Amino acid sequence: MHTLGIDLGGTYARAGVVDSEGRIVAAAKTALTQRTPEAVVAAIQGAAADALALAKETAAEVASCGIGVAGQLRPGGFVSVAPNLGWRDVPFGQLLAAALGRNVRVVNDLAAAAWGEFSAGAGRGVSDIFVVFVGSGVGSSMISNGRQLVGATGVAGELGHIKVVPGPNGRLCGCGEHGCLEAYVGGHNLNRQMREAVERLGAGTRLFHMSGGDLSKLTSAHLEDAALGGDPAAKEIYDTAALYLGVSVANMVTVLNPARLILGGGVINHCPGLRQRVEEHVLAFANANARAAVQVKSAALGDDSGLIGAALLARAAAG
Amino acid sequence: MHTLGIDLGGTYARAGVVDSEGRIVAAAKTALTQRTPEAVVAAIQGAAADALALAKETAAEVASCGIGVAGQLRPGGFVSVAPNLGWRDVPFGQLLAAALGRNVRVVNDLAAAAWGEFSAGAGRGVSDIFVVFVGSGVGSSMISNGRQLVGATGVAGELGHIKVVPGPNGRLCGCGEHGCLEAYVGGHNLNRQMREAVERLGAGTRLFHMSGGDLSKLTSAHLEDAALGGDPAAKEIYDTAALYLGVSVANMVTVLNPARLILGGGVINHCPGLRQRVEEHVLAFANANARAAVQVKSAALGDDSGLIGAALLARAAAG
Repeated sequence: MHTLGIDLGGTYARAGVVDSEGRIVAAAKTALTQRTPEAVVAAIQGAAADALALAKETAAEVASCGIGVAGQLRPGGFVSVAPNLGWRDVPFGQLLAAALGRNVRVVNDLAAAAWGEFSAGAGRGVSDIFVVFVGSGVGSSMISNGRQLVGATGVAGELGHIKVVPGPNGRLCGCGEHGCLEAYVGGHNLNRQMREAVERLGAGTRLFHMSGGDLSKLTSAHLEDAALGGDPAAKEIYDTAALYLGVSVANMVTVLNPARLILGGGVINHCPGLRQRVEEHVLAFANANARAAVQVKSAALGDDSGLIGAALLARAAAG
Repeated sequence: MHTLGIDLGGTYARAGVVDSEGRIVAAAKTALTQRTPEAVVAAIQGAAADALALAKETAAEVASCGIGVAGQLRPGGFVSVAPNLGWRDVPFGQLLAAALGRNVRVVNDLAAAAWGEFSAGAGRGVSDIFVVFVGSGVGSSMISNGRQLVGATGVAGELGHIKVVPGPNGRLCGCGEHGCLEAYVGGHNLNRQMREAVERLGAGTRLFHMSGGDLSKLTSAHLEDAALGGDPAAKEIYDTAALYLGVSVANMVTVLNPARLILGGGVINHCPGLRQRVEEHVLAFANANARAAVQVKSAALGDDSGLIGAALLARAAAG
């Protein structure tokens, strides 16, 4: 028996037929031209049909479906807030189940990705993992004794919003609060800090040179190149990001005692030096007992983790 | 059916007969004159017999026993390290089971206390709690969806050893590392900081006056009195402790999303102002979603939490 997994981003939806081992048998992707719940449901329906056709499965052989959504959820498949889609209080699980004629489990995208890594990626073979994704945002998920920690209201894992510079002197985060880890480490904020530095220091900086004059082209990979190449402005942003991220992750390892720490996401993938720094900080600052127990690994499933994890979570819920 | 619970400290052992609701039916305490495993087992045997006699239970009616030990444990009832007792690698569960003629479950003292609060104290009625105890040391425990998070090697919850001042400039902690939360907030370290301040600033300080000339008499209660009374040296130590503890706890609330945050331990109990500051920091610095979900409470079982929790954990293990 296979399961349908869906990864819903802000600009596309991808559907895949996933086997019991977490392998993608077939997948199809579609761009979201409109973002109303009805239009998104229709787009997913199309991608799912394409994936099922590719997999040569009949509808009856794929009973359940899991979908990962970037946003806050409530029980019953409700999406409370999904900023990328501009949604508030959408009964998305119900709409999608009606359209697909299948049970649908709606899960947080990061929780799905972590579950994918746990079941079929870098977390295979152990029961306790802590997964940290650093992309445009920063998120995490703990799986303890084989169970995902979701919290009392389903918002556990918000590592991006712990305070590393508490109080009004902390950088303003996209969440509206000051001093969050994400304000120093998330990809959007790294880009903003680079633009601020070039605007302050002018065209003489290595970052300006790298941008070819278009600051919107700067990415975290440029930041790492410039910082490791000795550009002082880049180095300050980069070292600060590495220290805050590394110590924060080390502290979570101390409290959570995972067997594996799994690092992934666009910023981590494009900045091998940053990933290395985080690992060094974990080795330097996690408590000795927790440090002795933890193995640091890179996420292994890349962009497939959310789709695979959503499918496997739906399988688990279906029993 | 009742259960036997034992709280083993560095200077005493206390045994109690506990009912299924977590109430202590009868209890007896004995001082530890010697700390060899054999002597401790004999002392516990005496206290347990006294408690059982007081409870008028026959041995047959109390089938299992749980014991909380301050130290690191390994599966099978082994105590890897118990600094208060000077033990290393003691097969304590086996020794005690043989002496008592009962199944014995050996658990970490802080995990036992947190489970006691969860089952019969300030955590009743919810499924997700984060418990923080600030006494001579600092420890924590998370119970998520009714299950205690123990970690891959049983050392989860070491909140006292997260780094708040990473690197060699951090205060030296009893664990041998620098910059741990406990080095700024634990009772032993607050006392040490007070002594250092008086030695540096001399007999004119309010802290010296409070000590009556004997610096070993200073406690965290004196620190709070002096700080709130305007003594600059005391205020610096106190404000630093409150900030580091408050932000650290707020950050854990952000990542763990508990329904209740439960604060206990000697320093918290003797410093109501510090407890208040921690609560204010949680409200100021925890992520909005996590903050909206959490209720802050004081531990309700006092010194009984470990004994009750150990008994109830043994009951749970016995099925």
